[in-house]
Amino acid sequence: MKIIHTIKQMRIWHEEERLKGKRIAFVPTMGYLHEGHLSLVQVAKQDNDSVVMSIFVNPLQFGPSEDYGAYPRDIKRDTQLAEEAGVAALFLPEVLEMYPYYPQLTTIEVQEVSEVLCGASRPGHFTGVTTIVAKLFNIVRPDTAYFGQKDYQQVRVIKQMVQDLNMPLEIISVPIKREKDGLAMSSRNTYLSEEERKEAICLSEALCICRDNHDKGEKNAENLIRYMVQRINKEPSAVIDYIEICDAETLKPLSYVQRQAVVALAVKIGRTRLIDNIIIGGRA
Amino acid sequence: MKIIHTIKQMRIWHEEERLKGKRIAFVPTMGYLHEGHLSLVQVAKQDNDSVVMSIFVNPLQFGPSEDYGAYPRDIKRDTQLAEEAGVAALFLPEVLEMYPYYPQLTTIEVQEVSEVLCGASRPGHFTGVTTIVAKLFNIVRPDTAYFGQKDYQQVRVIKQMVQDLNMPLEIISVPIKREKDGLAMSSRNTYLSEEERKEAICLSEALCICRDNHDKGEKNAENLIRYMVQRINKEPSAVIDYIEICDAETLKPLSYVQRQAVVALAVKIGRTRLIDNIIIGGRA
Repeated sequence: MKIIHTIKQMRIWHEEERLKGKRIAFVPTMGYLHEGHLSLVQVAKQDNDSVVMSIFVNPLQFGPSEDYGAYPRDIKRDTQLAEEAGVAALFLPEVLEMYPYYPQLTTIEVQEVSEVLCGASRPGHFTGVTTIVAKLFNIVRPDTAYFGQKDYQQVRVIKQMVQDLNMPLEIISVPIKREKDGLAMSSRNTYLSEEERKEAICLSEALCICRDNHDKGEKNAENLIRYMVQRINKEPSAVIDYIEICDAETLKPLSYVQRQAVVALAVKIGRTRLIDNIIIGGRA
Repeated sequence: MKIIHTIKQMRIWHEEERLKGKRIAFVPTMGYLHEGHLSLVQVAKQDNDSVVMSIFVNPLQFGPSEDYGAYPRDIKRDTQLAEEAGVAALFLPEVLEMYPYYPQLTTIEVQEVSEVLCGASRPGHFTGVTTIVAKLFNIVRPDTAYFGQKDYQQVRVIKQMVQDLNMPLEIISVPIKREKDGLAMSSRNTYLSEEERKEAICLSEALCICRDNHDKGEKNAENLIRYMVQRINKEPSAVIDYIEICDAETLKPLSYVQRQAVVALAVKIGRTRLIDNIIIGGRA
């Protein structure tokens, strides 16, 4: 596995692979890898010749009161996991390599789909995401990029950007990886105390309750949400940020589930903000 | 010369050229070609194997009260001029090809350098420019793109975008082409009546006066501007939109010319808004 620290080196690697006729996949991450990330690599390997993974904790997508400084990092362990997973090149730029001056003048804005859910809770977050992802796409120049469906809205926003700006690559969304008890895998799970870890299953359980009620015939979003709120409020440390049922494509809130919808929620367990989602009313 | 109407065809053409190892230059235009555009092609041919020109009058960069509908178009003549100039591929997308829905959700914003001069006079203009240019870059995927220095701020904004988003191409700025009497070439010159055409030389003459005064030792921007205002106000149809002396790099207004500066002005001659600029205090 080639380890790359600079943009220039990354471009050279790209050219070499391209000359060999290789089809390049890209898995951008913020590191502290778990099975969710590794499943992206597995899926990427199936349809491509070389997988590039990037690890970069992007300051631009964190709010001033968020966990940029505390975000877990373990490059040594990540490097080993990436190599074992079959990553061909691991791109590990420093902050100054990606942002020679900070904040940079140019940003990419996506209206509507970035304004709801996490976009409403975390102002500027998706601008930070689209901007860094566009930068990485322009550096790595992959044929396809893979993102986890746990960040459903992120994938939706990135797909919109790629479509609107005619970026020459395909975006693939990969199903959520879960712990045995249902908790969606996330680098932020490491923040949880033992007690909080137990409480954290309220997110996936609430989503299952929603799906069960929906499958039994309840289509009223308000009612579906009420049962989820009840489940989450059973946990003493849980504070709901949002629970919404939205059109899976437009992310506009629905009153009734009549077509494919995403049930998305963000819940703080103690000081840790977790998100999860599920698709109902159609195939995932 | 290959004439291309769809994004898909353009991508196929790119792939074919790339497989032949061709270095691709790009000259994006809004058509109604004049010697300024053709000089971009000439410069582009010197350092590249194939030149792609696009002609697309981009609605997103026109304000609601601006001249989008009236903007001069003559595809037949443009096609002939492009062919004679040695363009390899002419990309002529329809509006619906570039904007399947309008306005699209994604835009690119460049702070600071896009907020002064024409950016202040034409709100949203540079957002429209950066967004369409990024789209075209992603479709054409050139090694180098060529822009006329008449749109000094445009080039500055696009260079900022390319740098900040790590776009994999180089931006080249080509000197202004002028009519014999000094008027900067522009497709909008065609709007001018015979009388207005005579008055329009006040822009380039004011810039020459500024340069002469500067070369004689006047470094105070307020004084330099005052003489320019006097020259332009001699013309009965001329209404100044702005005259500014800015740092050539940051575009911040200067009080004294102590380093390379751009003298930029926008003047309405009757109903036609014209722009021009000159570099002083260093090499162009």
